[in-house]
Amino acid sequence: MNQLIIEPKILKGTRDFLPEDMAKRNFVTDRILKVFERYGYDTIETPIIAYAETILGKYGDEGDRLTYNFEDSGGRKIALPYDLTVPLARLVAANWQDLPMPFKRYQIQRVWRAEKPQKGRLREFYQCDIDIIGTRSLVAEAEIARVVVDVFKELGFENFRVKVNSRRLMNAILQSLDIDGDALSVIRSIDKMDKIGEEGVRKELSEKGIESGKISRLFQILGDRDFEDYDTSEIDEFLQLCKDFKIKEQYLEFDPYLARGLDYYTGITYEIVCDEVGLGSLCGGGRYDDLCGLFCKEAFSGVGVAFGFERIMIALDKLGKLQDIPLNSKVLVTVFDEESKSDALKIYTSLIEAGVNSEIYYQPDKLFKQFRYANKKKISFVVVRGSEEQEKNEVTIKIMETGKQKTIPVNQLISYIKGYV
Amino acid sequence: MNQLIIEPKILKGTRDFLPEDMAKRNFVTDRILKVFERYGYDTIETPIIAYAETILGKYGDEGDRLTYNFEDSGGRKIALPYDLTVPLARLVAANWQDLPMPFKRYQIQRVWRAEKPQKGRLREFYQCDIDIIGTRSLVAEAEIARVVVDVFKELGFENFRVKVNSRRLMNAILQSLDIDGDALSVIRSIDKMDKIGEEGVRKELSEKGIESGKISRLFQILGDRDFEDYDTSEIDEFLQLCKDFKIKEQYLEFDPYLARGLDYYTGITYEIVCDEVGLGSLCGGGRYDDLCGLFCKEAFSGVGVAFGFERIMIALDKLGKLQDIPLNSKVLVTVFDEESKSDALKIYTSLIEAGVNSEIYYQPDKLFKQFRYANKKKISFVVVRGSEEQEKNEVTIKIMETGKQKTIPVNQLISYIKGYV
Repeated sequence: MNQLIIEPKILKGTRDFLPEDMAKRNFVTDRILKVFERYGYDTIETPIIAYAETILGKYGDEGDRLTYNFEDSGGRKIALPYDLTVPLARLVAANWQDLPMPFKRYQIQRVWRAEKPQKGRLREFYQCDIDIIGTRSLVAEAEIARVVVDVFKELGFENFRVKVNSRRLMNAILQSLDIDGDALSVIRSIDKMDKIGEEGVRKELSEKGIESGKISRLFQILGDRDFEDYDTSEIDEFLQLCKDFKIKEQYLEFDPYLARGLDYYTGITYEIVCDEVGLGSLCGGGRYDDLCGLFCKEAFSGVGVAFGFERIMIALDKLGKLQDIPLNSKVLVTVFDEESKSDALKIYTSLIEAGVNSEIYYQPDKLFKQFRYANKKKISFVVVRGSEEQEKNEVTIKIMETGKQKTIPVNQLISYIKGYV
Repeated sequence: MNQLIIEPKILKGTRDFLPEDMAKRNFVTDRILKVFERYGYDTIETPIIAYAETILGKYGDEGDRLTYNFEDSGGRKIALPYDLTVPLARLVAANWQDLPMPFKRYQIQRVWRAEKPQKGRLREFYQCDIDIIGTRSLVAEAEIARVVVDVFKELGFENFRVKVNSRRLMNAILQSLDIDGDALSVIRSIDKMDKIGEEGVRKELSEKGIESGKISRLFQILGDRDFEDYDTSEIDEFLQLCKDFKIKEQYLEFDPYLARGLDYYTGITYEIVCDEVGLGSLCGGGRYDDLCGLFCKEAFSGVGVAFGFERIMIALDKLGKLQDIPLNSKVLVTVFDEESKSDALKIYTSLIEAGVNSEIYYQPDKLFKQFRYANKKKISFVVVRGSEEQEKNEVTIKIMETGKQKTIPVNQLISYIKGYV
């Protein structure tokens, strides 16, 4: 009927996730959300299609180039979310009177980028954020640090560090050196320390027209942690609160070079790295004042981090933490022949009613085919009931991992399997 | 800084979900997925932005009008998914050699419609599907019926019915009356029985040019279930398999009028209604041959249903089944004053480390404000530790539901709360 065959292709930078991919992704998501929920974060969801002006937000004029946007058939300028922070700001501006304040939320949703897709750069991918809106207390900063540490531990990371810095301190240093005019540009260069090293940063700052004396003094202050002339109360209090939160020292590192290239941070900033996987930042964020200023007159200060979900997936794969993630079925009930189908269905129904995740093979077929199906679905137990077993009212169970078989009375099947799972 | 304030508005037909909305939606989703997983369905995910031709699929020329589509900045014709069936067909066509066959999957994702949004018609909403691809066995049809019954029972529905019919039988009847030339058009009229009654359908069929003698004979056959001259083996075998699956008769109803207005059904069709909520069909689907024919030469027969997630949410709300759905926090640790903050953090950390979902109030504040916060977050226990409790190394716990208070030694806090939750 359909003579014309459409190529079943997907757009570059988007992906299909098959059951085994999804099992891994859900395994990771479940662990992350469990931590968020333990700290009392609730979730929200924001629309995918949105007025472009409500998405461009903090990205301003650049937004139009960065975001995936278009005109819809009604002539409206639409954009898909670029991140989860701007939609959060919009939602809070529209609903703050109904929300508990401070408002803590987590959100895991897809976001879109207009960039040309290439290796490691996707057009459509997941982000995973937590934020606390509406308090200036540094307890919030420390809680976020603790949540981040718990998430990475829960996922099985060992050698990771939450690098922290104070944007307030950084700004004070730049101001004292009289280079606060182009503070953001300087911060963006310092942000490259890990990539291009001190020499590279010095060169870049010099090219940006900063006097060499000031550059040297800057590196002296940051390198020697020569903060005597500066107010370090923010970072000091934060680190003390992290101790109160019992964050182990091995996971936390004050890094005066830590910069984070975005201009809206105003206090503590974070960046999480894991040297053994070496993928750069796996998570980052910080304190931003006036989160919702774009959308309302009320001033809400907030602090939050975005987990790089896709990078975390790659890191966990590299570390071998995503092997043997099971699929949903535990048991396959095979069907021997047409005559015994009704009998097999009876056994299957009893498993289902006992709450055992299981399947029945849909038609009589060669047993090797039914076993092959069980293998593809990573099923642990295959139930076989040939004529002999039927006569004796028994079943044979094959334990797929070991290849061992066991024949037991049919009325012991459920307790046998429940004893295993 | 931001003098221009952008109105925090969202597109008509899209929605923000606040934490309480999400708690309800997740409560429902979790219950539905639990059933799917019990029957061994695994999940997949397909992209949101897609080549328009891979989305229009079975909707053909009409698709362009129905789907939300646009041209992106790269000049590509893009569409957002209209349903979850066509993306499934594309995914199977592209990956069938890697998938377990038969392939059973569930999927819950947003879909988009181009229709003008109005009450009950959204532009962006969720669908929730299960399908079994790659078997013609009627066991698959019966399993789907059983899954559907389990889902509606699990959600707390009582007076619901899975109406079933055989498209094969319907087609045979129309053919015998020599009106199979416009079978689909006739089926679409019969589909309106519930809405416009037998008289209305008769009138419509007459207007479509069907001879009145044929119309009378059609209603006679369907009304009297006068199927002697027809092959009813499909529906008979299906109903027998439903018995083997122990589906209770009260939930299943053979309805010869059931039509389902889509042309791609070829066998058993389903529609789930719940008279006490009266919202029309809450779930529907059926057997379709050649699911992937648009995308590949291999012929895959499939059977599946789509749950109307948004209608189910409305129905459950109407039935009062979504009251008192909790949020994530169980305990709030209050902060009495600046001096005791560190002490409060210690108590809070011990709760977190014991795995109790809890929160700390971020700064010393009037107690009534902290209690108000606890109320807004539906928190069950509020922990207070004033100077007296500190001296005696005790805590006072307020049980929010009853308003009762209890003062206990601080080292009994965790076991006390764990005894409740």
